[in-house]
Amino acid sequence: MPELMDGLRMGTPAGVDLNLGILDENDQTAVLNRARIEGAGARCVNIMSSPGSGKTTLLERTLADGRSPRIGILEGDMTTELDADRLRACGAPTVAITTGRSCHLEAGQIAGGLEKLAEDGGLSRFDLLVIENVGNLICPAAYDLGEHSRVVLVAVTEGEDKPLKYPIMFHGADLVVVTKLDIAPYLKLRVDVLKRNIAQVNPAAAILAVSAETGEGMDAWLDWLRGQTAA
Amino acid sequence: MPELMDGLRMGTPAGVDLNLGILDENDQTAVLNRARIEGAGARCVNIMSSPGSGKTTLLERTLADGRSPRIGILEGDMTTELDADRLRACGAPTVAITTGRSCHLEAGQIAGGLEKLAEDGGLSRFDLLVIENVGNLICPAAYDLGEHSRVVLVAVTEGEDKPLKYPIMFHGADLVVVTKLDIAPYLKLRVDVLKRNIAQVNPAAAILAVSAETGEGMDAWLDWLRGQTAA
Repeated sequence: MPELMDGLRMGTPAGVDLNLGILDENDQTAVLNRARIEGAGARCVNIMSSPGSGKTTLLERTLADGRSPRIGILEGDMTTELDADRLRACGAPTVAITTGRSCHLEAGQIAGGLEKLAEDGGLSRFDLLVIENVGNLICPAAYDLGEHSRVVLVAVTEGEDKPLKYPIMFHGADLVVVTKLDIAPYLKLRVDVLKRNIAQVNPAAAILAVSAETGEGMDAWLDWLRGQTAA
Repeated sequence: MPELMDGLRMGTPAGVDLNLGILDENDQTAVLNRARIEGAGARCVNIMSSPGSGKTTLLERTLADGRSPRIGILEGDMTTELDADRLRACGAPTVAITTGRSCHLEAGQIAGGLEKLAEDGGLSRFDLLVIENVGNLICPAAYDLGEHSRVVLVAVTEGEDKPLKYPIMFHGADLVVVTKLDIAPYLKLRVDVLKRNIAQVNPAAAILAVSAETGEGMDAWLDWLRGQTAA
């Protein structure tokens, strides 16, 4: 599989007709990432949100829970390994992918990340690979990374209107998680209006609300996450 | 001036040597935007932040304050005129610029917005033109729009580490405004650490902390804003 992916990334068909002609390079690589992950018996979730919505904190709490699937992490950031270090401290094998000036992850970076994760015991030791994308509610939505499902986080502190103002991101989500629920009592925001706006932009999305601080909603989140594994 | 700008946008020098040879098209248009605004005796502030940091709310409170300069607004959003309508309701002449799938404003869009703002009484009726950029802590930093100063907002709810993780945006700021100060008591975040991280990335930036909710810090913000006018 690595040879095949290298071939495709170089733009040379590797002798296997995958009917990828209509896909651009990113999407071709994403298809191969997905196949590689499935070949290892795992699945992949791509988590996206604004900066500071609580992606890393949600993952910390998830990893600390005995009911968590076995997770490997691909951690995207413009710079620093601050988040990657937080997740390593929770015991999760984590590859940091720094994007420099770029505002999103691309499938080629995930291919490289999978390669690194695989070096240290293979991918079959994971039930789930979790991609924490760069904090950005716009551009990451445009890039298939090889995930099986997309999770979008929106903190109660961001306001009721975000799904309406950033519809492409919310439209593409399989699950939207409303975070920082414990802070809602101190805000004018109405959580039910936020949920209604999510449903308006994406009637098919599942919606959960959690507080990583108090643990509220974490059961439902862990149930959803376990439901994403191949088992 | 509009003729000159049209000429440059078409790639044809309009008979005036502005020594713009080394600038790309966006930056050329930005230079002309800035000249047009100065010609009207005004100045321009470009406000940027993550989605939901409180850009529109800060502007609402500013416009409601009798000490506010005379402000015209260029309101960037992917879609909807929700924010533009909020600011119009405060009495500010406001042009909505919707970017569609794009994650930032470009100088050409501001040139068009200035043209619209000028139609209805000229630009000289303003002390200050305020650009509210698309909610995105990454890409907008790369585009000079013709502003005279850049303000970056970061809400206390976004965490202490954001300046370190999104350094390009914070590095380019003339002023960083820490927002939602009234919520800080309910968070683990330490405001002084956030401020220290801002100063680490950008020692030259002014730093203010405000709550549009309680009014704390609004005096200093209004002082800063008045200091940006040509008067």
